[in-house]
Amino acid sequence: MINFADRVLAATREKQSCVVVGLDPRPDWLPAEFGLSAGKQTADEQVADAIVEFNRRLIRAVAPAAAAVKPQVAFYEQFGWQGVRAYAETIALAHKAGLIVIGDVKRSDIGTTAEAYASAHLGKLDADAITVNPYLGSDGIKPFTDFCKLGKGLFVLVKTSNPSSAELQDWPRPPEAGFGGQAGHTEGGQAGEGQTLYRRVAELVETWGEAHRGECGYSAVGAVVGATFPKVATELRQAMPHTIFLLPGYGAQGADAEACRACFDKDGFGALVSSSRGVNFAYRSEPYKSRFGEAKWEAAVQAAAIDMREALEKVRAGSSS
Amino acid sequence: MINFADRVLAATREKQSCVVVGLDPRPDWLPAEFGLSAGKQTADEQVADAIVEFNRRLIRAVAPAAAAVKPQVAFYEQFGWQGVRAYAETIALAHKAGLIVIGDVKRSDIGTTAEAYASAHLGKLDADAITVNPYLGSDGIKPFTDFCKLGKGLFVLVKTSNPSSAELQDWPRPPEAGFGGQAGHTEGGQAGEGQTLYRRVAELVETWGEAHRGECGYSAVGAVVGATFPKVATELRQAMPHTIFLLPGYGAQGADAEACRACFDKDGFGALVSSSRGVNFAYRSEPYKSRFGEAKWEAAVQAAAIDMREALEKVRAGSSS
Repeated sequence: MINFADRVLAATREKQSCVVVGLDPRPDWLPAEFGLSAGKQTADEQVADAIVEFNRRLIRAVAPAAAAVKPQVAFYEQFGWQGVRAYAETIALAHKAGLIVIGDVKRSDIGTTAEAYASAHLGKLDADAITVNPYLGSDGIKPFTDFCKLGKGLFVLVKTSNPSSAELQDWPRPPEAGFGGQAGHTEGGQAGEGQTLYRRVAELVETWGEAHRGECGYSAVGAVVGATFPKVATELRQAMPHTIFLLPGYGAQGADAEACRACFDKDGFGALVSSSRGVNFAYRSEPYKSRFGEAKWEAAVQAAAIDMREALEKVRAGSSS
Repeated sequence: MINFADRVLAATREKQSCVVVGLDPRPDWLPAEFGLSAGKQTADEQVADAIVEFNRRLIRAVAPAAAAVKPQVAFYEQFGWQGVRAYAETIALAHKAGLIVIGDVKRSDIGTTAEAYASAHLGKLDADAITVNPYLGSDGIKPFTDFCKLGKGLFVLVKTSNPSSAELQDWPRPPEAGFGGQAGHTEGGQAGEGQTLYRRVAELVETWGEAHRGECGYSAVGAVVGATFPKVATELRQAMPHTIFLLPGYGAQGADAEACRACFDKDGFGALVSSSRGVNFAYRSEPYKSRFGEAKWEAAVQAAAIDMREALEKVRAGSSS
């Protein structure tokens, strides 16, 4: 069984890409050919079928440029159990296309309940890795890390990309001194008095991952770190030397390739960068809207994925100098 | 549209009960008549159908003694989309029996993703309330509180019942001074230097709930507080005077009715108490195993629910003295 971190490294090398494409279906935004125009009443089954077909073509378009895909399960759950069927079929399609699948499920629970979630998402639904929320502590992580022995991976939320992430994740740092984590952070220090919660979580993530390191030196237990807070990312890169970062917030949320630089190691490895609507709905926004438009939506999506890869490959190459 | 807190109060008065029965199906534990004996390979569809039938009879057995039921979605998700179908059907059955349904989903995400979760669980799947995880801050809660205007409710994780809950929720209190939250806590003080994370979350919960208070004075935004930490519960009752507590950990996790006392207000209101395997698998443990056994599993379940209600009603009556 190949360790998940080693699988990520192999995919990054083979594809020359650290790109993760979100698969977050929004029926109202689908090209007209899928017949789900805004406001139209459609049965869950038809919506689910349309989502699967859209994802099938989306996966084909981005597979050459992406190392992984990241379906966000909320966008499937909103169509009930038919939506979850579409989620399961999407994972199978991505696997057929040779892509690593990160289920963005942010689950959190303890004991046998966490075991049930792990069995659901890393077993039955067969994602290669999932995102999890650390609020319940080690009891809530252990049942998931048990799956790392089976080649599966985790990404634990450490510092998220949203504006209000500082409210709890920077605790007890006073908001005025460091809202958004852009000021007042401690570089590379040890945990202690006044240490932020995200830093405490970072230490736990390194501990949780210790028994699950691959040949590459990284662990199958990764971390979600918002690319929107580059200074915090620098601090966390030092605090978690064996942890692969999953960086959301690229594109639509405002982070560019340069903002990701601090998250790569000297070999340009150690981070995956995720974009959702910036890629999977590229035909709805410039520059792709003018260049391709809705009729050529697959070409638009492919161009966006390739552009993202190229921008990030320059940064990754720069990291190794 | 009746406010969720007012609905909880009405149900508590009508049923003379603050009991919440978990609906956490474990196929291997189901009575033999359901044909899912341990180790036997069964298709998801058959497991899902058996779960729905078990829950249908379980709901009928506990409905007279319970104010609400709390299906834990992880136990359904482990059977894939068929499991989620069983979850949806279970919610509909509980509604038919006149019970409030709390979906124990502990979801956490931001923006449009959190909107999709809210639409999924409070809309499509139609739970009356769900549990949510606060780690992402206000951005992750707002999309859910928007549903409170529609009569729906939330229970935000504040202090969970598991042993490792102190690791992050008591931050930055050093673990040695307060592991398990049984020592070193500040009674009734204001947020400030050295304040624990759970106390910070408690303040946010009161703030998030302010615009959603019902006629009873409580808010549709509630809190999950582990009954396993009575001293912390006392502190949190003072810190969240307008917040209904959902107390897990009764029975199997070691908390008894006495441990819940501090969570009720002077009128014996303000808290719901949840038990899962202690009630829904009562026929597997003493004293119900000897009294009823598997053949009379419905009578065992009903007796366990009634015993739990009676124990808690004594405590609730005592609160009003």
